[in-house]
Amino acid sequence: MVETVMEKSEGRVSYHDSVEEMLKRIREDGLTNVFDRWAVQEKARCKFCLQGLSCQLCSQGPCRINDKIRMTRGVCGIDADAMAIRKFLLQNAMGAATYSHHAYQAYKTFKATGEGKTPFTFTDVNKLKWMCEKVGINTNQDVNNLAVQLADFLQAEMDRDDENPSVMVETFAPMKRKEVWRKLGIYPTGVTSEIRDAVASCLTNVDGDYISLAKKALRLGLATIYTAQIGLEMVQDILYGTPKPHEVDVDLGIMDPDYVNIVFNGHQPWVGVATLLKARTPEVQQKAKAAGAKGLRVVGCIETGQELIQRFNIDDVFVGLTGNWLAIEPLLATGTVDVFAMEENCSPPALGPYADKYQVTLVSINDIVRLPDLHYIFDYKPPEASFIADKLIELGIENFKKRRGKVTPKVPLIKTKAIAGFSTEAVLEALGNILDSLVRVIADGKIKGIVALASCSTLRNGPQDWMTVNLTKELIRKDILVVSAGCGNHGLEVAGLCNMDAVEMAGDGLKEVCRSLNIPPVLSFGTCTDTGRISMLVTALADHMDLDIPDLPIAITAPEWMEQKATIDGVFALAYGALTHISPVPFISGAERLVKLLTEDLEELTGGKVALGDDPKEAADKIESHILRKRKALGLK
Amino acid sequence: MVETVMEKSEGRVSYHDSVEEMLKRIREDGLTNVFDRWAVQEKARCKFCLQGLSCQLCSQGPCRINDKIRMTRGVCGIDADAMAIRKFLLQNAMGAATYSHHAYQAYKTFKATGEGKTPFTFTDVNKLKWMCEKVGINTNQDVNNLAVQLADFLQAEMDRDDENPSVMVETFAPMKRKEVWRKLGIYPTGVTSEIRDAVASCLTNVDGDYISLAKKALRLGLATIYTAQIGLEMVQDILYGTPKPHEVDVDLGIMDPDYVNIVFNGHQPWVGVATLLKARTPEVQQKAKAAGAKGLRVVGCIETGQELIQRFNIDDVFVGLTGNWLAIEPLLATGTVDVFAMEENCSPPALGPYADKYQVTLVSINDIVRLPDLHYIFDYKPPEASFIADKLIELGIENFKKRRGKVTPKVPLIKTKAIAGFSTEAVLEALGNILDSLVRVIADGKIKGIVALASCSTLRNGPQDWMTVNLTKELIRKDILVVSAGCGNHGLEVAGLCNMDAVEMAGDGLKEVCRSLNIPPVLSFGTCTDTGRISMLVTALADHMDLDIPDLPIAITAPEWMEQKATIDGVFALAYGALTHISPVPFISGAERLVKLLTEDLEELTGGKVALGDDPKEAADKIESHILRKRKALGLK
Repeated sequence: MVETVMEKSEGRVSYHDSVEEMLKRIREDGLTNVFDRWAVQEKARCKFCLQGLSCQLCSQGPCRINDKIRMTRGVCGIDADAMAIRKFLLQNAMGAATYSHHAYQAYKTFKATGEGKTPFTFTDVNKLKWMCEKVGINTNQDVNNLAVQLADFLQAEMDRDDENPSVMVETFAPMKRKEVWRKLGIYPTGVTSEIRDAVASCLTNVDGDYISLAKKALRLGLATIYTAQIGLEMVQDILYGTPKPHEVDVDLGIMDPDYVNIVFNGHQPWVGVATLLKARTPEVQQKAKAAGAKGLRVVGCIETGQELIQRFNIDDVFVGLTGNWLAIEPLLATGTVDVFAMEENCSPPALGPYADKYQVTLVSINDIVRLPDLHYIFDYKPPEASFIADKLIELGIENFKKRRGKVTPKVPLIKTKAIAGFSTEAVLEALGNILDSLVRVIADGKIKGIVALASCSTLRNGPQDWMTVNLTKELIRKDILVVSAGCGNHGLEVAGLCNMDAVEMAGDGLKEVCRSLNIPPVLSFGTCTDTGRISMLVTALADHMDLDIPDLPIAITAPEWMEQKATIDGVFALAYGALTHISPVPFISGAERLVKLLTEDLEELTGGKVALGDDPKEAADKIESHILRKRKALGLK
Repeated sequence: MVETVMEKSEGRVSYHDSVEEMLKRIREDGLTNVFDRWAVQEKARCKFCLQGLSCQLCSQGPCRINDKIRMTRGVCGIDADAMAIRKFLLQNAMGAATYSHHAYQAYKTFKATGEGKTPFTFTDVNKLKWMCEKVGINTNQDVNNLAVQLADFLQAEMDRDDENPSVMVETFAPMKRKEVWRKLGIYPTGVTSEIRDAVASCLTNVDGDYISLAKKALRLGLATIYTAQIGLEMVQDILYGTPKPHEVDVDLGIMDPDYVNIVFNGHQPWVGVATLLKARTPEVQQKAKAAGAKGLRVVGCIETGQELIQRFNIDDVFVGLTGNWLAIEPLLATGTVDVFAMEENCSPPALGPYADKYQVTLVSINDIVRLPDLHYIFDYKPPEASFIADKLIELGIENFKKRRGKVTPKVPLIKTKAIAGFSTEAVLEALGNILDSLVRVIADGKIKGIVALASCSTLRNGPQDWMTVNLTKELIRKDILVVSAGCGNHGLEVAGLCNMDAVEMAGDGLKEVCRSLNIPPVLSFGTCTDTGRISMLVTALADHMDLDIPDLPIAITAPEWMEQKATIDGVFALAYGALTHISPVPFISGAERLVKLLTEDLEELTGGKVALGDDPKEAADKIESHILRKRKALGLK
């Protein structure tokens, strides 16, 4: 565990020693890599693009806004604020679409399981019944029928429109929020309809009003969480089990070159689980041994890894989580990966040279994922999960035979423990199933408040995870409990902030709570997709206390957002009514009215607003003072 | 009619004298305008953006590709080709989404009409029955029931996925194309699913393979035409009548300041039609007269205007079409517009100053359309069509009272005749309902071939419509029949190429055909949304001759594409199997392998390919030589 706050000036590219170690090899081997590409690009950034003052949408562009030379509008007539938010809305639509695609696959898998067409069973039948009751499906039926009906219901939810309002929003939104959203005109329909209209609104000469575009982003954020994310996470829980806290191993040191290693990368756990189920059979292990390996292992990488460690115990077959997306190239460079199976982001495009150099078989197992130099494509369809798992095992064994003679493995001897698998249910269980216990520790100030961290990992704020880890350290030191999700969460796990040793870093109040409940100060809630799951905990708290979200001593942070799922989670948080710290500054800084809207005026409208700040200490102070303000308003010290 | 080929060097900004005349007033009045904004932006274009070598999607950007300083990849690892096509795919998704939104409104309107909730009736019941037969709906039912069922069917078509293949594609695609699309993996599902997956594929680290991204664009193009466009056009025909050729008035000279003028701008005709029906009643005319006007008029602007002139006769209430999108600011500057009602693109953002100066009431009548300085918003829902029409009439009369005293009108004394309203059915009727007549005039070389022009209007290639008009003149001179759609079509109508005088400009063979059939050499097929309609004529021809699309002596041109509906029409044409001339060059020119794929290699795959070229004569020569090659392959001279 790295215990000192690292300075940016040390010339490091990552908070993690394992990544630093592997980068040496990558550089010695002369391979393109994200850290060196960053350094090259950093030489010549476009300041118009950085500020959001550049548009390339139509043939009359590219246009720039540059007040100094009286370029105040694009050719079409668009102003700086609308230009910047339009591009941002479009990014959010990407995030919403990717979550929707994940949800689509989840519901298809769920339905196919009910129809007996997958290798999966329903692990959490209670949750299946609970969900059905919540949304009005008669639970007096066979489990398989229930699953089929719930799958159809959830699929239809994504296509809701004004004429057929969403049941999921009505069911899962905080009670006091709905009226706020209705008044603002951001009460969402289904995510598919919202994506269509958001993307259509970005067409040239359709929506040139920055306030309208901002509201469309907020509505899209709500639609994404309520009609895609929450449903898909519940479905995954029913299929593979609701997460429960347990100790797992993380970091690159989990890799062992003597095994056939099949790595799952992305967000969608279907084929990963199917392969794990098979890998745990003696037949498969025997096949691997026959090829000269000690056995065959399943390894989790980024969010798929997180989905797996949340729900499956570590053993000799499933060995844990390697790290977040910036650790992918370093992972491949260990020379231990036989199959790198990708089913969503982040599957970076330039992995071909790694596959060649370190003998990795690159496989896409999802129809949207493609990169140059892919060796195999098996686009996932639920009835083919088992077939694809067989193919990956076969490819892994074949690759092992080639790799063994060809590549000298180099594995950093670094691994850490993390307690993964928190969920609303798990937190409640830790509290003895009484939300009042949580209210009490907040009320008496042992925990000042809660910060949800949902983030990626980026190099813009310094070394990988530098901002995330240091901000989190500051927060827990201030007795603020952190619940974390996404690639940022993996960063925290690998940095050792999600295990019991980290309790030492917490302030006295939080330390006491952690010890008494036997939880770490950072609760690993899963992937970026679990933003919805985190909101369920907060919603339960608000409804229980008969408060609205903006009344609570909570905040959200995305201290290293990188891609567009993070931004849609961020705009959801704003509509949800939370102070939302976002770093690095999105490409909107040149749009003055827009920045004012998001960082100031929005608070009057939704109760949420954006807090900017790229320094971990300053950001933590900002968040703390917000939480203290909220405490004061509630009459708490 | 302008008869000489205009040189770019004349210092003009438009092919049309009316626009030139109004620009003088706009400049005298010191208003921001698209032509002067163009000149300002033209001073400082970003060469990376122009070439497609710039990306601003994630927080590790903005990145550029610049081989000279060894910037060969973005930070994530993406290469030049994938960077360029990814941005292009995203643009196409905007076009697809906007067409889908139009289709969604069309199907809702159609269904509501069947339920008796709109002021509309079914004008073309034969087409309703024909469509129902085509898609397998039992026609032995009440007309209203048929409409409701067809609406539900078409709505569901947009949501099709792999498990539920599209019936529209199966029904309307050329017989010999389907196998080609299946082999290439571009056989489309519903447009909503394709938008979701295309937009998700643009997320950072999802699809980094330029070939895969290009295929996704092709599939999206097919989905757009077959599951959104064709359905919506058929529905509009059933509601308001299948277009039939008739003479209409076009250009700014149709405006009369002494009337209350309500202008409809965009693409969706619902409220325009509802208002026209009301405006033709004595009660409404009387109200306008009571306010001191000579009466109340409905005026068509850009594509909504085209939708109206295709189906409604000109009289003292409906006076024709003003022009295309670059003529919007000039139109408002005439000081004759009382209500400018907008329901889709192009509704440019900077109209506020025009509204102030020339006393115009700006109204959005569609949920996606917003701009700063809107005076009223009435988001269209089918049952409210009549209510919104009443409001617009009321607002128009109120505005007239203010405008009369305040604004000195200035209307260019320029208007032209155009024959609008061609459709597959109309062409067949002109041919005596025998496709062989068309085959014969092509076979004997009187018509060398057919070019479909589906385009916007842009300033990049010189003055407004300069490229479109001059290219078209070249084509008809070469005995190539032009069928036209979109803002480019309005440019041709206003330039006088769609009336019988234009026959004089045609080559001898085409001249003879035009005279014998009494048609102009340029057939106005409507709006950019009518790309699907045009394809139906070509598909009928191919199926009738038992040929595949690439065998036919045809081509597509978008000589002045501006926005993203044009690009999705263009990629459809490539998948459809046609030589597709695109100008200006899309922002992909720095991506060498991609340019080669689209301009060369694609022909082996789909039979279609991109032809570039911004000079009208050279482009016409390229298109002609393609058509002659196709004729030769068919054994024709």
